Amino acid sequence: MTRLTLALDAMGGDFGSCVTVPAALQALASHPSLQLLLVGDPSALTPLLAKVDSSLLSRLEIVSAESVIANDARPSQAIRASRGTSMRVALELIKEGRAQACVSAGNTGALMGLAKLLLRPIEGIDRPALVSMLPHQQHGRTVVLDLGANVACDGAMLVQFAVMGAVMAEEVLGVSNPRVALLNIGEEESKGVDSIRDAAARLKITPSINYIGYLEGNELLTGKTDVMVCDGFVGNVTLKTMEGVVRMFLSLLKQGSGGVGERNRQPWWLKWLGRWLQRRLVRRFGHLNPDHYNGACLLGLRGTVIKSHGAANQNAFAVAIEQAMQAVQRQLPERIAARLKTVLPKSD
Amino acid sequence: MTRLTLALDAMGGDFGSCVTVPAALQALASHPSLQLLLVGDPSALTPLLAKVDSSLLSRLEIVSAESVIANDARPSQAIRASRGTSMRVALELIKEGRAQACVSAGNTGALMGLAKLLLRPIEGIDRPALVSMLPHQQHGRTVVLDLGANVACDGAMLVQFAVMGAVMAEEVLGVSNPRVALLNIGEEESKGVDSIRDAAARLKITPSINYIGYLEGNELLTGKTDVMVCDGFVGNVTLKTMEGVVRMFLSLLKQGSGGVGERNRQPWWLKWLGRWLQRRLVRRFGHLNPDHYNGACLLGLRGTVIKSHGAANQNAFAVAIEQAMQAVQRQLPERIAARLKTVLPKSD
Repeated sequence: MTRLTLALDAMGGDFGSCVTVPAALQALASHPSLQLLLVGDPSALTPLLAKVDSSLLSRLEIVSAESVIANDARPSQAIRASRGTSMRVALELIKEGRAQACVSAGNTGALMGLAKLLLRPIEGIDRPALVSMLPHQQHGRTVVLDLGANVACDGAMLVQFAVMGAVMAEEVLGVSNPRVALLNIGEEESKGVDSIRDAAARLKITPSINYIGYLEGNELLTGKTDVMVCDGFVGNVTLKTMEGVVRMFLSLLKQGSGGVGERNRQPWWLKWLGRWLQRRLVRRFGHLNPDHYNGACLLGLRGTVIKSHGAANQNAFAVAIEQAMQAVQRQLPERIAARLKTVLPKSD
Repeated sequence: MTRLTLALDAMGGDFGSCVTVPAALQALASHPSLQLLLVGDPSALTPLLAKVDSSLLSRLEIVSAESVIANDARPSQAIRASRGTSMRVALELIKEGRAQACVSAGNTGALMGLAKLLLRPIEGIDRPALVSMLPHQQHGRTVVLDLGANVACDGAMLVQFAVMGAVMAEEVLGVSNPRVALLNIGEEESKGVDSIRDAAARLKITPSINYIGYLEGNELLTGKTDVMVCDGFVGNVTLKTMEGVVRMFLSLLKQGSGGVGERNRQPWWLKWLGRWLQRRLVRRFGHLNPDHYNGACLLGLRGTVIKSHGAANQNAFAVAIEQAMQAVQRQLPERIAARLKTVLPKSD
């Protein structure tokens, strides 16, 4: 297996190195071909590696970065003052060819701005978009974008997202002629806002896109489309709403089927059976657990950047690292760039 | 109990009279003080009443309306050509004082436009908003608006929604000093779009509103706020996403905990216990079922108008009828108007 080197913004996210370092060690233990560059403050990172096995340490290197971009910083200010921050240094490692991809749980706006500045968009793409492949109830996946990189989008941007999403569905999910839909508040042509109606008019006359029309929020999990396109504000709220409901159901299932008072009155064998059935239900819905698909890809750049949830736990951040590995192994940016040349011969 | 008369747009919605008439009869059977005016085409409605008990028929009257506003009609065109439609006639019955409220599952945009035209907004309100009280995991309810009446909103409109939502939480949910939040893509001040940041700045200096800041989509069901404010596009997509996930979970729970193959290998008593535990789970999550809270109130008008889901089934439309009854009994428009006079002494 060929060696694969990723740069991790070890200081980003709500929990910083408390999550990123254990997740990095977990990923190294699972993937013998993986090498990691931990970017951050050595005085914070070194103590966390004190008792780590040397076989893992040999594939881990600390790259010093003196500061961190705050989660609540304004992206424009953060970018101006980004020199020497863990996020920027991690991205620079890709640019310098020392890392093949980077993972950060830090400030989304700053990550997008810096990544665009340092890695440059693919030709034909104005602004990169955050993309995830969300599991749906048919046990397949739907490519959803934008999930928060661009809070306001015009029709042309939505069309670029549609093209990127379609390429991703084909190359990564292996769907031929993937269905592409726009997220709207109704399926009728007159529904929605100007940008969406404009995008619909353009997509209808783009022969290389299998545009199937508008779909509503309740269709996100039904598997009716392979690609769902929306602006970053709506995508972010929608994703978080969906994840909130899924987490609530999973936690209620884990708590058990009866109330506390009722449970105490149950015989032991009924409690045991109840727990057994609950475990099966939790396993059955497990593929919908947001922790299992953490890590959105910042698509449309000449490099691979994965944005982890800011509140990701160790397992979830390890999943984001695996997403970065997959994206590199499947040469996503290169394949998307090659496909875009045929799909968007001349940008309008 | 005092008599209560509602007008039903019997032809609106995806299923028209096939749903509205059985739901009307169900509501009449449950509420002896209820009288209904069924507005629509008598030749379509009369056959559906052929075998109905005379005790119910005596509290039911058909009001003739020759046409229907199509679900996919552009609201502006639909409103211009609305004379004689079931939706308009139902609203006119409120204006004439023959009905105390109206329920329609028809075209949302047309219903909002016509209601505003015929019933007029309360002083201090520019545009009415669609409001629902969504159940959350603490078994309480959150007032959420706007759910689709206004696809684009400026800061001033969001502030008006906040005031209406707070009044509704106080008057209907009985919450004193209700918490009010803005739905956004992050909790930091810099997040989101201009309209939301503008609304936040205004709400912070409105002493009568207990503004608690931004909340994200995953907080919709946690009960962290009593009122959640957003524009109609985001609210509609969010609501439908939430409902889609809830419906998916409920239907998967009903299907059973094991795969088909696994089930066939189970002994009868295990299947029986499995079904018993599933029924308990479905009951436990029942309060989250969207059919149980169907019917959004068009708030901010000098009259009560309830918008049912277009795809509502009989039970769900009956719930919308009950929502209208409650709104009338609690004198919602009058109480909101009275409170608005103190909350918004001078509109800006």
